[in-house]
Amino acid sequence: MGETEVESLVERALAGDRRSIAKVLSLTEQGGDGARAAMARLHPRTGHAWSIGITGAPGAGKSTLTDQLIGRLRATGAEVGVLAVDPTSPFSGGAILGDRVRMQSHTTDPGVFIRSMATRGHAGGLAAAAADAAAVLDAVGFPVVFLETVGTGQSEVEVAALADTTVVAEAPEMGDEVQAIKAGLLEVADMVVVTKGDRPGAQRTAAQLRAMLSVGATAVDDAARSGRRRPKRPAVMLTAAATGEGVAALLEALDRRAGELRDGSRDEARMRRATAQMDGILVERLHGILRGPELHEEIEALVRRIAAYELDPYAAADRVIELLGAAR
Amino acid sequence: MGETEVESLVERALAGDRRSIAKVLSLTEQGGDGARAAMARLHPRTGHAWSIGITGAPGAGKSTLTDQLIGRLRATGAEVGVLAVDPTSPFSGGAILGDRVRMQSHTTDPGVFIRSMATRGHAGGLAAAAADAAAVLDAVGFPVVFLETVGTGQSEVEVAALADTTVVAEAPEMGDEVQAIKAGLLEVADMVVVTKGDRPGAQRTAAQLRAMLSVGATAVDDAARSGRRRPKRPAVMLTAAATGEGVAALLEALDRRAGELRDGSRDEARMRRATAQMDGILVERLHGILRGPELHEEIEALVRRIAAYELDPYAAADRVIELLGAAR
Repeated sequence: MGETEVESLVERALAGDRRSIAKVLSLTEQGGDGARAAMARLHPRTGHAWSIGITGAPGAGKSTLTDQLIGRLRATGAEVGVLAVDPTSPFSGGAILGDRVRMQSHTTDPGVFIRSMATRGHAGGLAAAAADAAAVLDAVGFPVVFLETVGTGQSEVEVAALADTTVVAEAPEMGDEVQAIKAGLLEVADMVVVTKGDRPGAQRTAAQLRAMLSVGATAVDDAARSGRRRPKRPAVMLTAAATGEGVAALLEALDRRAGELRDGSRDEARMRRATAQMDGILVERLHGILRGPELHEEIEALVRRIAAYELDPYAAADRVIELLGAAR
Repeated sequence: MGETEVESLVERALAGDRRSIAKVLSLTEQGGDGARAAMARLHPRTGHAWSIGITGAPGAGKSTLTDQLIGRLRATGAEVGVLAVDPTSPFSGGAILGDRVRMQSHTTDPGVFIRSMATRGHAGGLAAAAADAAAVLDAVGFPVVFLETVGTGQSEVEVAALADTTVVAEAPEMGDEVQAIKAGLLEVADMVVVTKGDRPGAQRTAAQLRAMLSVGATAVDDAARSGRRRPKRPAVMLTAAATGEGVAALLEALDRRAGELRDGSRDEARMRRATAQMDGILVERLHGILRGPELHEEIEALVRRIAAYELDPYAAADRVIELLGAAR
């Protein structure tokens, strides 16, 4: 796609045309010149959306929660963008296996724009791809952008941490197996929501989570000082998937949090997204050079020599650095 | 640690001293000069171990399966190295929350060396760190090295895919939620094992998996042709966690598979590990330069300008490339 084509596509996206928005998202996902041209136009328009990360283990009720929050927001007339980086989400189709049974109520609402993103295959990394996609949805005018990601992998959790506000969903009685994953997840939480709050054990789960967050407080504070996580200890709330109870209160709490964010910690989220975007481009470029036609044969030969145990990986990396210097 | 110290530490590790092996693993995890010196000595000694990746969703029974396979191997006298990149694994401690209830039987056996690795915080990426650790365990003489990783994240699944042979564990009746994750996991499988094979529904789960693998056959073949996955379609087997039934048959099948691997596809696994190691070093170096004292201020200023929407991330990356050129 030529530069003029990209420009007119971006203009149509900025005018609100859904198909053009989808195409711009594909462009930025592909990286390279098209992405560069699109971002040059879109980036200065960014910075108005409020991004909400929703994460949690499979079965934690993320999608239902997202769906209910969207319902509340739509009732106020706000248009909503959803980025689903979650192979278990009905928003992302559940389509891999044709499971559309639990397909949510807002997928046919023109005020809700849903984009699914694969967890794999992003040259610059998943976080960078998600940061770019969120920037596009922001620039084209969605006042609220959800980032729904499955909370069970390093790269996937990083995506939720990019949002202005990050919600971790927990189902009651998930069992010991997920405790450790939970501990990792809680590090990125601004808010923890026990979904299925009307089920037996929900109150107990909430109490356990509050205790964990309190036991982990020192670690949390240390991490906050070193910049690894949010400065504020997360609140624990309950929602009921069946009745929607607690969702209005959660949205109010999120709104208060968004208000607080305007004072400063929103800048931190912006810095995280900016870092992810720039690092992603740099890593993508490095990969492009490594896999590119100019160096491909020499680098493949180096990898073969590592795999044959003739050359250690550090010595091979030294040689690649030399090659990179010569290639530029 | 000076180069002479690293050398003598590595010699003690090669002589089989467990504490020295642990220290060498820490060295390689930290990267930098210590890792470089250690790998220069160890890398030429690598290439003798058979590595087995065990992955699956939380609750799929990975650890019990690994434990039972270790038991069989120990009965033959073979020493076993275990790398647990899995926050849910009792091998990795389950220690985050002090949950040692399910601690396995081999953790006190001196013939079993267990190393846990965090899923986060590896500058060159998780796959690179795991490839390095597996190389160390190989070089110091473990004939079998297990890579147990939680199968619910991009980076985590990549670790299992680095092994010579990759086993995906599945519990019966895991529910629709995990179907999509399953589809991603099956891509890296050489062998699929339905654990808890004595439970109701196990046979049905095995049949469903066989059907999925058959439906996905075209995709699998395409992926194999493009080099993204193993050339052979995975077999589905059953084991019973309670009785250990099926474990001997599984080990035999794995052994046959290892024999086949000697013909060629083992080279592919070696190439994957070599690529992960070299890329990891390059990305770590890139990060080191980006976060290093020389460029830190200028790069932070660029990130601030991206976050303030004054500069788009591609333009910032261009400037970083210039800075990198000047810095070298």
